[in-house]
Amino acid sequence: MRETWVVGAASSRYGKLSETAREAATKVALGAIRDAGLEPKQIGYTFVSNCFGLTEHQGHLGPLINNGLGIPEVPSATVESACSSSSAALHEAFVHVAGGFADAAVVVGAERLGHLDTLSATGHFAYGADQPFETRNGATFPGLYALLAGAYQAEFRTTPEMFGAIAIKNHANAAHNPLAHFQKEITLQQYLDSPIVASPLRLYDCCPFSDGASAVVVAAREAIRRPTREPLVIRASARAGAITDLQDRTDLLGLPSTRLAAEKAFRQAGIGPQQVDFAEVHDCFTIAEVLALEDLGLFPRGTAAREGLEGTTARDGALPVNPSGGLKAKGHPVSATGAGQVVEIFDQVNGRARGREVPRTDIALAHNVGATGGSCSVHLFGRR
Amino acid sequence: MRETWVVGAASSRYGKLSETAREAATKVALGAIRDAGLEPKQIGYTFVSNCFGLTEHQGHLGPLINNGLGIPEVPSATVESACSSSSAALHEAFVHVAGGFADAAVVVGAERLGHLDTLSATGHFAYGADQPFETRNGATFPGLYALLAGAYQAEFRTTPEMFGAIAIKNHANAAHNPLAHFQKEITLQQYLDSPIVASPLRLYDCCPFSDGASAVVVAAREAIRRPTREPLVIRASARAGAITDLQDRTDLLGLPSTRLAAEKAFRQAGIGPQQVDFAEVHDCFTIAEVLALEDLGLFPRGTAAREGLEGTTARDGALPVNPSGGLKAKGHPVSATGAGQVVEIFDQVNGRARGREVPRTDIALAHNVGATGGSCSVHLFGRR
Repeated sequence: MRETWVVGAASSRYGKLSETAREAATKVALGAIRDAGLEPKQIGYTFVSNCFGLTEHQGHLGPLINNGLGIPEVPSATVESACSSSSAALHEAFVHVAGGFADAAVVVGAERLGHLDTLSATGHFAYGADQPFETRNGATFPGLYALLAGAYQAEFRTTPEMFGAIAIKNHANAAHNPLAHFQKEITLQQYLDSPIVASPLRLYDCCPFSDGASAVVVAAREAIRRPTREPLVIRASARAGAITDLQDRTDLLGLPSTRLAAEKAFRQAGIGPQQVDFAEVHDCFTIAEVLALEDLGLFPRGTAAREGLEGTTARDGALPVNPSGGLKAKGHPVSATGAGQVVEIFDQVNGRARGREVPRTDIALAHNVGATGGSCSVHLFGRR
Repeated sequence: MRETWVVGAASSRYGKLSETAREAATKVALGAIRDAGLEPKQIGYTFVSNCFGLTEHQGHLGPLINNGLGIPEVPSATVESACSSSSAALHEAFVHVAGGFADAAVVVGAERLGHLDTLSATGHFAYGADQPFETRNGATFPGLYALLAGAYQAEFRTTPEMFGAIAIKNHANAAHNPLAHFQKEITLQQYLDSPIVASPLRLYDCCPFSDGASAVVVAAREAIRRPTREPLVIRASARAGAITDLQDRTDLLGLPSTRLAAEKAFRQAGIGPQQVDFAEVHDCFTIAEVLALEDLGLFPRGTAAREGLEGTTARDGALPVNPSGGLKAKGHPVSATGAGQVVEIFDQVNGRARGREVPRTDIALAHNVGATGGSCSVHLFGRR
């Protein structure tokens, strides 16, 4: 297996795109290739994610993006795994490059939902859940994650202030991220005053619907003579699935796919959770950040919500989590999110996360969840 | 790179599904696993294709299928590349297994469009074309392939009888395929009498909208102690892209992505086109079969239409093409088509293609096109 690096990264601003997902994807793909100091013709495969392209009446994005990049002959595929689509695409790129099937690949996720109204957007998101058993009975993701939040609250006697602390932290981080959807801090009072969306989740527990596009370039170490940026060494690229429906699970105090993917990832990398310097985790809801931190083994079960309140996961804490602002405040353009987490890690390592720098960047973790954990990807990145 | 085999295969009947794509996909995936003599728990990755799942309000099919198979922990991803989706998925499975990242993977494509009316189905198919430059100007696939047919006709002075011969052959083959959408022969007169869809294409030049599901299991030779079926050795798995829009191409007498993918495939396999015993090619329209045979190097430019008329590509001809009936008559459930071609090759090699056997099965070729050739996959299969 060849040592495989992330060598370039680029992102659009998250929030509202005035262009199509295709246009945004092409721009950030080119941005990431240039960031890597490469020419498009050095790309051997293009992996795209774009869950809701049908709402723009456009599928088959790979060749269109490659045409825009001036490399029409390069093969491409679109990879979907609900909200973990572009981390699943990154895994394919990793397998191609590490396995010697391509020297360099671009991974680009793009989503545009701003042309849909909120109800329709919620409905489209819910296509990632189980249609006959969840969605058809009225469950959408806020409701499903509310069940997880309720179970956690009942077991560990958490307070609203603990979940509020996560929202406040992630908004504070996003305030320093010029590409974030929300660039404003919020107060505990604003959090507590925000309306209930699905009890116990308040509005500020929930990530927004965002448009956006993010891309990274993955390459074999041996294919890069002199990297223009400090590369991320992909120390692990691991994925797992799980029982999809909450009603079929025996334990609601975590996502089994995160636990399994994390186990595989740490084994691959030959390191333990205590060596992680910072993490971008899938906080589609504040409860999701709590569960992620525990499932990943970064905090013992039942403690992550308290640790958040105590500042452990703040930018200057012992383990900074979601310095980008996370899905919660940077935004969640479904298919861009997984790639966007890696963009943040790349920017942190390259000193481009001005105003939101984390103190140590030797080992970073990216954690991306599909639906309520039917899929999960965990990537571990190190330095050369 | 590990020697990689197709070890099991299964397909639904093509035509109209009374169940959802998810249900059909789960059934054929289980069918292919059992056909291989494996247990679901031996599967390391599930690759799904399902372009139009959003019309059934269901994305994220991988985990749902894996749940149905009783292997919820197994990672999965959905792969889209328009009409070449499940051959693109097969390529991912090949890369994972040949590269040593998984010992066995299932590839399953499923499509259900029967709940849409014909206009809506045509519109959905057209999402594979270039929305702003083709579709928005009224071009759908029958129109685009009609341009290719017109250019070929003008250059090589073909007759309607030559294209009719392809439709007649593929219907004759499908008449012996119990899983085909159309199980009836057609006559030249019926072909000539059929209405013009987009000049010069008649109704019988066009494949139908089909529902259907097909699956194959791919495994490393070293992971299979004793194959229950005669495996297909994957001698080559090659993909390529091309300039997407016809108006931007300099040559309409072929699809450049087929030529490039074929070149790569024959190089990988270390054999030449003259060694191919039979082929399943992408005949979404009769002209597409003609172009495929020439682009693949199986016939010299400008001769394939004539060869069809002379019977060279019939089941008992020198080079049988589309013994299954092809997209034209077996049917074209978009995301199942690429996998379905491999099911036919597997069935031919295993003596399960009763009544439509081809004489020689040592080297087989599968050719699957996305849109008007923005993507193409070519696979070459040999015997142990």
